Amino acid sequence: MVQFSTRMNLLKGSEIRELLKLTSQPDIISFAGGMPAPELFPVEEMAKASQAVMEENGRVALQYSSTEGYPRLREQIVERMDAKNNIKTDKDHILVTSGSQQGLDLSARVFLNKGDVVLLESPSYLGAVNAFKACEPTFIEIPTDDGGMIMEELEKVLASTENVKMIYVIPDFQNPTGRTWDLERRQKFMEIVNKYEVPVIEDNPYGELRFEGEYLPALKSLDTKGLVVYLGTFSKILAPGYRLGWVCADDLILSKYNFLAQAATLQASTIGQMETSKWIDMFDLDAHVAKIREVYKARRTVMLDTLEKNLPDCCTYTHPVGGLFAWVVLPEYMNAKDLQMKCLEKKVAFVPGGSFFPNGGHENTLRLNYSCMPEEKIVKGITALCDTIKENLK
Amino acid sequence: MVQFSTRMNLLKGSEIRELLKLTSQPDIISFAGGMPAPELFPVEEMAKASQAVMEENGRVALQYSSTEGYPRLREQIVERMDAKNNIKTDKDHILVTSGSQQGLDLSARVFLNKGDVVLLESPSYLGAVNAFKACEPTFIEIPTDDGGMIMEELEKVLASTENVKMIYVIPDFQNPTGRTWDLERRQKFMEIVNKYEVPVIEDNPYGELRFEGEYLPALKSLDTKGLVVYLGTFSKILAPGYRLGWVCADDLILSKYNFLAQAATLQASTIGQMETSKWIDMFDLDAHVAKIREVYKARRTVMLDTLEKNLPDCCTYTHPVGGLFAWVVLPEYMNAKDLQMKCLEKKVAFVPGGSFFPNGGHENTLRLNYSCMPEEKIVKGITALCDTIKENLK
Repeated sequence: MVQFSTRMNLLKGSEIRELLKLTSQPDIISFAGGMPAPELFPVEEMAKASQAVMEENGRVALQYSSTEGYPRLREQIVERMDAKNNIKTDKDHILVTSGSQQGLDLSARVFLNKGDVVLLESPSYLGAVNAFKACEPTFIEIPTDDGGMIMEELEKVLASTENVKMIYVIPDFQNPTGRTWDLERRQKFMEIVNKYEVPVIEDNPYGELRFEGEYLPALKSLDTKGLVVYLGTFSKILAPGYRLGWVCADDLILSKYNFLAQAATLQASTIGQMETSKWIDMFDLDAHVAKIREVYKARRTVMLDTLEKNLPDCCTYTHPVGGLFAWVVLPEYMNAKDLQMKCLEKKVAFVPGGSFFPNGGHENTLRLNYSCMPEEKIVKGITALCDTIKENLK
Repeated sequence: MVQFSTRMNLLKGSEIRELLKLTSQPDIISFAGGMPAPELFPVEEMAKASQAVMEENGRVALQYSSTEGYPRLREQIVERMDAKNNIKTDKDHILVTSGSQQGLDLSARVFLNKGDVVLLESPSYLGAVNAFKACEPTFIEIPTDDGGMIMEELEKVLASTENVKMIYVIPDFQNPTGRTWDLERRQKFMEIVNKYEVPVIEDNPYGELRFEGEYLPALKSLDTKGLVVYLGTFSKILAPGYRLGWVCADDLILSKYNFLAQAATLQASTIGQMETSKWIDMFDLDAHVAKIREVYKARRTVMLDTLEKNLPDCCTYTHPVGGLFAWVVLPEYMNAKDLQMKCLEKKVAFVPGGSFFPNGGHENTLRLNYSCMPEEKIVKGITALCDTIKENLK
């Protein structure tokens, strides 16, 4: 009899990925995914970058390369983290990963033994929870409010819990809620973390997609003790198809990530790294991100306006100022999975929120993605969602 | 204080990857790597395939896609496994991975708890051993002879050992020895495996690179109980820069790999998969592999001829009929790491063999790669290696 490891008891396919298969028909109005808008991909420019790489350096692009990543790309990452996140580092503190999902997987494996405790926002990113589950930890969810993780609650848990080995946070335009921590909360967080000296995984896939308000510094930029591991990605600012993310961490921690990355995949795609790097050198990533921001901002505004007009008062929703997601809380008696079934009949899809709570519950919540649908479909779909909610009020 | 997981105590960088950094200067004659010859990469054809993908389907290529992999590529993999390995399967039994290194990492995590036993050939592929170490198993090395793993020894271990959860083998042109199992041994192996019902990881990166002699069926093609997990890769027949491999396994096992792959990296590169698939549709992979075989065969022959002429009688070496590697056993008193230092002074590099034995020892062995050096450099380098060995005979 074939026996599987105990970790496999905890892992199942992401409900979102299963749902995405259902909702990929073109007539569905889908707020379910977390994908960037494909109409904004710079396809022709990417084709030019690809040709340039193949002409100038094709044999290198097709060969194995270092685990750390393509040096020029790591320099570009460093420049960007300085310009956008105020993080001062150098390319020796960057590891290029096969998507930032790999950064999550490596994080769990670097820090967690079976049974160790991970703290995270309640709710948090499902993909991270799944990656962490492969190490069989215990999850403690830290309560949140509209400003993100509540620091008093975090401190209470840290003061009373043994074996906390990692804190996972998404301070900017969080997945799934769209919430952002203000500066005071970031500073307080670093104070607490410095006191307890627990490693922090700061996941920042959406930080550059700010629609309004002022820039807030990354936790990593406030990190004086080398406790923060910063995860970045090209998926939301350029294209996810290459599967390229990165880890930025201090020497000792990054060396562990490197060893494990080598064992896990040897390296990220050489050609993918070189084409991405070439694109950044040939074209204007800032201008490209500005275009993405503008489109997403308009879609976000349409979604919030439509919710404002149509969502019953007994529901609440977040007001994201960046990123890809908004979050709705229904009346406690309403189950978002049932609602989902009813909405699918009307060809409207979203993700029920329960999956984003590692310890379960909260079935009266749902996540809405606004990056992937044109404005008229957002109006139509959100109106249908709100109608369905109204039909199911007690 | 930051604490790391216990698995990190076992993981360090591969000595080979470190060595490769030392030996990447152009004046070094290196038999150290395991890389395909870059001069054989079909760079111009790949550029054409890339352009075709971007023109026809660029927005799909740059987007997220399924964990399982690009459907057309999985069909092509199925056709190739049928034609080359006599394995009958369909695309629903294929998972595309981020290099076959990811197949190794997933294998360990699907089957192994801490302390479980892995059986493997002695010696075996270092990259696999490192991937497995992340699950903290116990390694039992099964003795080998010139025909590969010795089946009587395997049976003895299986009969007397608890918690054997996985057997890892490379029956074709093994890394590091270049040895191949004959048909009888393959059949005997499957008999034993069927009796004990232990999952088998069959790693076959080199199978298509046969220089002479007859085709031998893959273990997976002899598998009647769904115990064999087959790992394939495009790295040695096309190009490693895309990081594309695959897992072929029966339903239940493959579903576990899928869940874990999703948690680990979400998916392999969409664009890499589509370009590779397009290349296979546009060009002739068989003709390309034939060209690789011809070049490697000539290099292999020159290496073996030079060893035959120059290697002292107290040493032995393997006679690979395919793949990338030959293996030398020095007199017991000679340490290959010391020899390596002396050879580096003469600008010749190889990999000391001790690293390929997970439980240590065998410091009097070394691995020679012949795929990456032109013939005249092979003569020069192997002659220098043999001279150095002679200078150090007792």
